[in-house]
Formats: sequence, structure tokens, C-alpha cells
Amino acid sequence: MEGFSKREIVRLGALEIMEEGKKEEYTIHFEPSGLKIEVPVGTVLLEAARKAGIYLSSICGGDGYCGKCKVVIDEGQFQSRPTTLLTPDEVRKNIVLACQTKVLSDMTVTVPRSHALQASQILMDTDARRFSELSGEPEAGVFEFDPLVRKLCVEMSAPTVHDHTADHERLYVAIRGQIDAPIMQTGFRILQGLSKLLVESNYKVAVTIGRRGGTTEVIEVEPGRRCETNFAVAVDLGTTTVVAHLIDLTNAATIDTEATYNSQINFGEDYIRRIIYAEENNAFDEMQNRIVHDVNNLIVTLAARQRIDLHDITALVCAGNTAMGHFLLNLDPTRIRKEPYIASVSFVPPIRAAEAGVQINKRGLLYCLPSVAAYVGSDIVAGVLTTRIYTKKTISLFVDIGTNGEVVLGNRDWLVCASSSAGPAFEGSGVKHGMRAAAGAIEKLNIFPDGSIEFKTIGDTHPSGICGSGLLDTLAELFINDIIDRTGRFKANGDERLTEGDEGLQFQLVPPANEHQEIVITQADINNLMRSKAGVFAAIRVLMEATQTKLEDLEAVYLAGGFGNFLNIQQAVTIGMLPDVPLEKIQFVGNTSITGAKTVLLSRKALEAAEKIAESMTYFDLMSHPTYMEEFIRARFLPHTDLSLFPTVGLAE
Amino acid sequence: MEGFSKREIVRLGALEIMEEGKKEEYTIHFEPSGLKIEVPVGTVLLEAARKAGIYLSSICGGDGYCGKCKVVIDEGQFQSRPTTLLTPDEVRKNIVLACQTKVLSDMTVTVPRSHALQASQILMDTDARRFSELSGEPEAGVFEFDPLVRKLCVEMSAPTVHDHTADHERLYVAIRGQIDAPIMQTGFRILQGLSKLLVESNYKVAVTIGRRGGTTEVIEVEPGRRCETNFAVAVDLGTTTVVAHLIDLTNAATIDTEATYNSQINFGEDYIRRIIYAEENNAFDEMQNRIVHDVNNLIVTLAARQRIDLHDITALVCAGNTAMGHFLLNLDPTRIRKEPYIASVSFVPPIRAAEAGVQINKRGLLYCLPSVAAYVGSDIVAGVLTTRIYTKKTISLFVDIGTNGEVVLGNRDWLVCASSSAGPAFEGSGVKHGMRAAAGAIEKLNIFPDGSIEFKTIGDTHPSGICGSGLLDTLAELFINDIIDRTGRFKANGDERLTEGDEGLQFQLVPPANEHQEIVITQADINNLMRSKAGVFAAIRVLMEATQTKLEDLEAVYLAGGFGNFLNIQQAVTIGMLPDVPLEKIQFVGNTSITGAKTVLLSRKALEAAEKIAESMTYFDLMSHPTYMEEFIRARFLPHTDLSLFPTVGLAE
Repeated sequence: MEGFSKREIVRLGALEIMEEGKKEEYTIHFEPSGLKIEVPVGTVLLEAARKAGIYLSSICGGDGYCGKCKVVIDEGQFQSRPTTLLTPDEVRKNIVLACQTKVLSDMTVTVPRSHALQASQILMDTDARRFSELSGEPEAGVFEFDPLVRKLCVEMSAPTVHDHTADHERLYVAIRGQIDAPIMQTGFRILQGLSKLLVESNYKVAVTIGRRGGTTEVIEVEPGRRCETNFAVAVDLGTTTVVAHLIDLTNAATIDTEATYNSQINFGEDYIRRIIYAEENNAFDEMQNRIVHDVNNLIVTLAARQRIDLHDITALVCAGNTAMGHFLLNLDPTRIRKEPYIASVSFVPPIRAAEAGVQINKRGLLYCLPSVAAYVGSDIVAGVLTTRIYTKKTISLFVDIGTNGEVVLGNRDWLVCASSSAGPAFEGSGVKHGMRAAAGAIEKLNIFPDGSIEFKTIGDTHPSGICGSGLLDTLAELFINDIIDRTGRFKANGDERLTEGDEGLQFQLVPPANEHQEIVITQADINNLMRSKAGVFAAIRVLMEATQTKLEDLEAVYLAGGFGNFLNIQQAVTIGMLPDVPLEKIQFVGNTSITGAKTVLLSRKALEAAEKIAESMTYFDLMSHPTYMEEFIRARFLPHTDLSLFPTVGLAE
Repeated sequence: MEGFSKREIVRLGALEIMEEGKKEEYTIHFEPSGLKIEVPVGTVLLEAARKAGIYLSSICGGDGYCGKCKVVIDEGQFQSRPTTLLTPDEVRKNIVLACQTKVLSDMTVTVPRSHALQASQILMDTDARRFSELSGEPEAGVFEFDPLVRKLCVEMSAPTVHDHTADHERLYVAIRGQIDAPIMQTGFRILQGLSKLLVESNYKVAVTIGRRGGTTEVIEVEPGRRCETNFAVAVDLGTTTVVAHLIDLTNAATIDTEATYNSQINFGEDYIRRIIYAEENNAFDEMQNRIVHDVNNLIVTLAARQRIDLHDITALVCAGNTAMGHFLLNLDPTRIRKEPYIASVSFVPPIRAAEAGVQINKRGLLYCLPSVAAYVGSDIVAGVLTTRIYTKKTISLFVDIGTNGEVVLGNRDWLVCASSSAGPAFEGSGVKHGMRAAAGAIEKLNIFPDGSIEFKTIGDTHPSGICGSGLLDTLAELFINDIIDRTGRFKANGDERLTEGDEGLQFQLVPPANEHQEIVITQADINNLMRSKAGVFAAIRVLMEATQTKLEDLEAVYLAGGFGNFLNIQQAVTIGMLPDVPLEKIQFVGNTSITGAKTVLLSRKALEAAEKIAESMTYFDLMSHPTYMEEFIRARFLPHTDLSLFPTVGLAE
């Protein structure tokens, strides 16, 4: 999204406009949202949209080659770079790529519904109920309630000539009367004001303490006994979405939840692309600002809605992939994408949230769950913690399918993990009519024996694209109905819906109607989906082979992530993405990232458990693994080259 | 030192001068130093002197009632408040109190030598040799060399796909290969730059680590292997003087030493007065600024002389009385002076030196030794550590006589301590011709049987006053030669040197000569000295009585402090300040405050020992002690009411 050269603008007469003394800020109206923003002449439209709070799809990070950020210019002057991604018809209709278009006047712009990301469809842990039925081995027990940050009502006797303990040590003695805190620490600024405060409050204070490893820090001392008010926020830092839960630390209750799209999305849909963008544009600060801005927005929204003072939010706990953790704290993420694929920090020490720009109590703490490797982040550790597979005697498989597909296999004695570069095909990227799980997306699809197609869209509107679970269904149904063969290739069976499109063969799922476009799935789309599912399954195979785990050894398969929310488990087995175990062994566990973050927030012992999990997990680098490519190639069949691995799919010859 | 009202200046025509457009800054020349300074019209002369770097005695803190800051105005216009502290003759000679005089023009001012404090005479540990012969019980051993802050050369293997440990954890593993550091911590800013630095330095770095309780903090990571350069400064924060030693942390050598007067002195000679001043004028920041300024000056002087970069000074360790520790860190000192006499903090956690304004490496640490009570500071803990009385089977007495007289009694099983409000009489305050141990001060004095007096001055100049050790001699000699009786009262024995002065009877020690004034000791002076020595001895008695320690149980008496440097041990027993034990049991140990600070700096185990000492010492509040007043009254005889306590003084009837 580098600026166009001055010469280009000159050619268009924009400079003349400026030189004539006309105004240099223009107002852009976005429809149908009605949002507007003032921007300087020459601003790139994608950037203007972001500033207005509209997040457009932009897989390529604004480089102009994904064609996802199409908008319609209803009114106004603009300058667009030529592109092959728009048809002559689209150009006539004033459709442009927002990332390749600059503002030259006041404008009115319509954003197609399918392209704008909407916060309403984000996966929250709506499946918490189902999750709550999950249980580990009995001996795992439940973590004791001992939040990382808590407020204590502390009352001391005032000093006398016979009890001349200094104020600081007097406070420590009183705190230790209530909690176990052998090693304590107090910030210098608090020490400086402590005596005055203790005297004025008659030695009755509310003390906020935070755990930092084995050390207990006195975060704040306030007069009086206002210690019933203490909140924290748990955050799942997703590449696509950021989810926040507001927790009452006095009783462990989740009071409210909120979610938003990750506003880094303009810089690329996957984090590798964002790292490249940040490197090329020295935009690490900007990258941090965006995610911090998102987190702050969530916090402010939750606090405002619940009428909570930000001062009373004393902790933030985050889980997420390694790159997002690095972006949030502005740790160097560049080596995540370069061999040998290294994180800067796996065990991030607690810091003051304000140091990262997060707006809670200015002395409040920010905790990150530990991660395992560059491609196995703290969200996966949170998943292992949540599903308790690390406490079980029997072997479990944990699969988190999002932008990547992370896989963990193990039990209480060992844990192995890997990350397949599944790619974001199941998130709608790299698929012609792929889209996010937003209004208008086909989320379920059936093809009947007579060839007719039934589907359901999110919001029950006319379909404008297909989201992940719809794509999974599509792939499975095309296969079951013999429209594609086991290699994923279209069969020339005379179906008139199979036509030659711009990108080769394509199959029409929904015909055009009125102003609505047709929806198709292309051979290239299928190839991308096949690669993604093959990547996940190959990762599972590598881990099972390496640990000599047989199919029948798998006692439980846990599915987590954004994809999983709409996942048809049967179809996931049919296409060979998940191993063919009895369906009752497969369980959807929702957003385990945020559940894990909450668990850690509420119990110091859970944080210790998460640290042990991260330490003990053995990471398999698939790219350098001798059999991964072979497994990957074998998995690029439906369901698999080796049909004996999928007995229930019913194709065994 | 509150400003005069505008009306006063108007009366003197100063405003007219200003309104006529004359210059508003005037130059003040100070003689004989030759120092000069530009100050605005109306500046108080005492303040002008301080700005010029001249520290005048000012016991009352500039309130105009101690009469110690007399100077001669040689030239220039000024405005002085009337005072009864100047004789008509002095007024004629243009002698003024600097604290009561304002600048109205360019001026030349002569500062009497005896009143200006000179840095050259400050007690350093010149007695280090003698001290080095001190030894504890053999089992006490020597503390292992393990400085609080150290630099390590750390070399790591670069990551590979088979060794993907994150950079942060990689560094920890490498550090733990060299030192014992189970709990580690790294600042956020360092984490942010760590990866880039490790890559650029090819995984060879110099790591500065600091100990904070059980935690080892990574203070700094620098590229390359420059780890041979690491320095620290130990500081003794005295009420009167501040002493600094520069230490090479790589080999424990003391490279250089420097000292300065505490520039808070303008606000009062003792710290109680300074606390009052700070409270009344809300001058806590100013109080901190001064002492920090002094410490910074010492550091800069040492670093410049030794051509050391301040960046390479990574730690500062301080010992001093509780009030000075509070002033340095701007901790609330006000309750030190009010019943029940409480410190804000006894165990000050390590902080970043920059947080207190101390200019060493910006991430360098500042450590304070722990203190025991409001009136038993970390200097006393340092003394106990240095003399090792806490390791001995037999009982020792430790006496530190400075502005106060702190006393510690004990052995390896128990330690008791107290602080007598000895008052600064032995430092020359409250004594008509008392002065500091500066050039011209009588430091030794003998009265022969024929009545003739022999004395020695510091610098062998004409005497301009009497410093502490001279006052001790004077008191003892007046007593031995029957000029005063056992109650300290002058005997009317017809000696013509005994005359009636302004303040009652006075004895002429040195007759006037040429332009030099006579030097006398007055009845009031003697009364003050008697009170001081009685306070110290009463404190010793209270501790001995409380612990049932008999004179013969005392195996060692250690004397420390500024006073001690010139102390005639025999005379100290003669006047009844120290217990009458065989002289060989009494040992002068110099400045144990700075020695203790250095010991702690060089060994973590020594800091732990200091913490145990501070924790285990039982403090006796003398003011509320039932027998202290009685003991004090009994001790206000020469040597004591009970002569059996002083058999060797030879007065037993």
C-alpha cells in the first residue's frame, strides 16, 4: 500500500487542484453503513475505509493482486491503477480495488456486504455449555481459585513506640496474614506515597496484588476498604478476530463478552504476509498500534456497557498465535517466517499493560500464556490446558483449524505438536467465492441424488459467497455425488452446471438471480481446499507415526477454532481431514484459546500448568520432517490414498 | 529561608533600582575561595553561597537563630534583618548572618575559614588497613565473591530447525550455564530488541545481570563480548558528609574514593531539622535533589578521574541513617521525627538508579542496605556486618558517634540496639567555638600541670575553632586539671582565664592574637558536651542492663564514625562516654558504613546477612524506656555518679 508517486498525481491534475487552493481534506461516505471519514487528498481508499472503521478483505495486504477489496464508487473523483482483476463490465460499473484507488474529491462508496467484515458473526465461546461437559481424569481436579491479580482488604494496627515496624514491612506482614506470598515486591512510586496513605486511611487499605512468577507484587494501595471491585479481561488474539471476555475477579464470573475483527487485516490476511509487510515498510509500530487499538476498543466497549471504571480492570490475559503475541508487544516477529523459524520470546514475562499501550489500570498487569514454537502459539497451549489432554492416561488428539491447522497429540506422559500450513482456504481465502462467516455466506450445503442443491446462508439472505463450513460441505458433497473424483478433479459427466470459466473448469452452485451474481466453485478452489485438508491430515499422521499411535488408540479427538463453530464433523471425516474414529469420540470444544486464558487468569496453578505444558510439548517441524511431504501427497486424495484408513467412508474396494 | 516580603524591598529602594532598568542579576564574589556566582536581586546570601559551591554552617536551617553563618560583606549593598546574634562591633565590621541577608548589588563577601565546610577533611576509610585486621570468628569465613550486579560473556549456538528454542529462553539457558539463577526476569524494552541484537551479534553478547531478592534480572544485553568493564559505586550517606568509593566489579578492587559535604546542610545540620524544613516548605523534592546532586557529583568526579563511562557503572549501593535513605529516594520521612517514630520503609527493594535521578547506567540498579528503625539506620547494620559481631560467641559493643550516637550490643545469638539523641555537640554544633574537623580546628589539646595549654590544629594553622576530638580532649583535660568539677561546673580557682562572658562563665583556651579572635569554652558548651556523652553512655548502660551484660563480659568495643577518626580513646573513657574496659579491647574501625556497603555490593550472601542482621536486631526506644532518664542523669557526672563503673579513672574514693 505504498503511496503512488507524485508524478502519477501530477498526470491526473490532482496537484493542480491542490495548487488552486481547493480544500485538501475530503469526506468519504461509505454505504450501506453510513460511516464517513475526512481524509487528505491522495489517501488510499482501503486506508480511508479502515479509518472509518470498515475492514475490507485484503488477502494480499494491499498489493493489488488478490482482488478481494472491490468497492463501488457511486460518486466522486478518484485515481485507480490499472488491474487485470476487474472485468470491463466491473470497470464500467465504477467498481475498483480499494487498495489501488486514491481519493481526489469528496466521495460516496458502496462496500459489498460480502466484503466488509462484520463483528457480529465472530466465534465466541457460545459452545461453552457443551465445553463445560468436558472433563479430564478425576485426579486432574479443578484449579483452585487464586487469580493472578486480586484485591485484598488489609487492616493493620497503627504503629506504637512498642511496635515500630516500618510502614512498608507492616503492610507485608498484614498481606502475608491473608495469602501465601513469601517473596514480595513493591514499585518505587507506591513506596513513596505509602506512609502518607496509610496514615490518612487509618491503616485500612485495599491492596491490589499481582503474581509475577514466584514474586507477589503490590500493584496498588488505595485508601479505605474498596476491595469488592476488581475486574480483568481475557483476550483471544486471533489473526482474523479478537475476542475479549470481561471477568469479575471477586467471583470468577464472566460478565460480558465482545469481539472485533483484527484491524491488521488490511496488511494481509495471514500473519506471514503481515510480518513481510511490517518488514518492508518498517511498520512494526503500526502493526502493534492496530492490535492494541482493537484490544482497547474491546475493553472500552465492555467497560462502558457494564459501567466499570477502567481503573478497576487490573489484569489482561492473552492467548493467541505466536505472531500475534509478538505484534501485541512489538517483539521482533521477523524470524517467525524465516528458517529456522524462531520466536523472540516463548515465555513472555508479565509486564505492565500500559507498557504495551493497553488501557486498563495504569499499573495493571498483562500476562501472555506461554507458546511452544513459532507456529504453535499460546492458543494451542490454552487448548491443551482446556481439554486437559495433558492429564489423561489415554491418548487424545487436539486439532485447531484456523488460518493454520495446529495439531497436538498426547496424554499425561507426553505431548507432541505440529503446525500444518493448512492455509486459509477454509477461511474463504484463495477461493473464488470464498468469504468469511458473515451475513450472506453459505454455511451449509447439500447436493441431493437428483443433483439439486440446498443450502443455508448466515442471516438467511441471498448467498453472496461460501464460508469455511460451506466449503467443507461443498467438497464432501461434490465427492459423494461423483461430481469430482478421488483426486478432486471434475468428472466430465455432462452436468450443464460444469462450465469453462476464466480459471478453468467451474461448477455452478447457485445461478445468478436479479442483481445477484452466480456462485461457483472452481477447480483451483478445490485444489486449495484439498491442500488444506491434506496438510492437516498429514500433520496428524506424522505425529501418530512418530509416536506409534494407532487409530484405535485415539480415545478422543477435540476440534477447536473459528472453523469448528460450523463444522460438520461427519463431512470432515468424509473428505479425510480428520481420522476415521467413531464420531462420538470427536468433540467440538469451541474457542479453547479464550477459555484457557480465563482459566489461567483465575488460577495461578493453571498458569503453572500452562507453563509445564509449553515446556513439555515436543514440536515437530513438518517442513524438515522426512515423511511429511509423502504423507501430504498421500492425503491429497478423497478421503486418502490409503482407503483402509477410512473404513467408514465406505469406498474400500 | 523564606523570601522577604516585597514591601521590605520597596522600603529599601530595591524596586526603584529594578524599575530604573538596571540589571537584575548581580555577581557575588566569595573570598578567600575566589568563587563567584550571578544571582537575581533579592537572593538570600546563604543560598547564593550554596549556588557558588560554598557550604556555610547553618544549624538552624536558615531560620536566623543559630548565628553560625556569619560572613563579612567587604563591598556591595545588602539588606539584613535585625538580629541579636551580632554584637554592635560585628555590625560595624559589616558582619552579617548570610541566611538573613539579601543581595541588592554586586558584592564581595568574605567567608571565615572556620565556617566554610571543606571537603578535604572528610573521613574516608583511611583506617582501612587497621580495619582489615579485624576478624570475626573463624566460622564466619569470608563472603564469596558474587556481586549484586555482574557482566557475563554469553555465547550461544544459533538456532536451527532442530533447535528452535526462542531467543529469550535461549539466552536464559546460556546464562544458567554460568551462574545459579533459577528465577529470571527481563525488562520489556530489552525483550523487544533482543532478537535483532542476538542475530546481529552472532549470538555472542555481554549480559549485565542484577540480583533482586531471589530473582536475577537481565539488566542489559550488549553486542560483542565487552564484558571486562563493569563498575559500581558504594556510598555512605552521612548527614554531614557523603562518601563514595568506586569499585571494579570484575576484581572487587576499590579504584578511587571521593567525598563531599551533604548540600542539604543549609536546611539544618541534623536531619530532624531538615525534615521539619521539608515539611514546612514542602521541600521534599528539593531535599532529594540536593542529596542526589551530591551523589551524582561524586560519581561524575570519580568516573571522570578514572576515565570511566557512566554507562559502565551498573550499580550503586548506599548505607546511611534512615532519614538520609528516605531523602535520597523521596520516601516520606516525616514520621521519623514524630512519635511513635516510624520509617516508611526499612527494607528498600532494589530500584533502577535512574528512578531516583542517580546518573549511572540508565538501567543500573540502586540498592540500599536495610535499616532497623527510624533512628538505627542501614549504616549501623553495615557496622554490625563489618565488625562481624553477629558471628561471635562473645559479646561485643559497637558505638557509632556522629550526629547521633547509635549503640549495638550483642553476639551471634542476639543483638540489641538503641540510638541516643547525643546531639551534634561533638561535631561542633551547640558549642560557641565549635566547628567541623576542617582546617584551623583544634583537634588535640593538652593542659599541663602548670596550666599551660598545648594544642594542634588541622593544617597546623592558627586555631579558628575546636572540632569534636578537640572538644573531647578539652572536657577531659579541664576535668583532670580540676578546672571543672565532676558535675562539669567551673571551679572558681582564681585562674584569670576564667571570665564572665555573654553566656555566663567561660574559659579562654587560646588568647586573641593579631586579627585572630580568642577561643573559649563556655559553661553552656560544657553542659552540651556532658549531655552528649551522658546520652551515649546511658544508652550503653540500658542495653547492658536489659541483657544482663556485665563490664567483664564485653570482649570488644568497636568505635566507628566521623567522630572516631580523631578520637582519643583514653579520654573517651576518662569523661565516661565509653565503658571502662581495658584499652586493648577498644578498637577504632573507621567508616564501617561504606565498608559494609562495599561488602554487600560484592557479595549477595553479604546482603542476605545484612537483611538477617536488620531483622534480628531488637530496637530499644530510649525515650520510652523506664530507666533511660535515670541512667542519663547518673551519667551527667565526670566520669559518672557511680565511680565504681570507672575504676581506672582513679577517682574511686
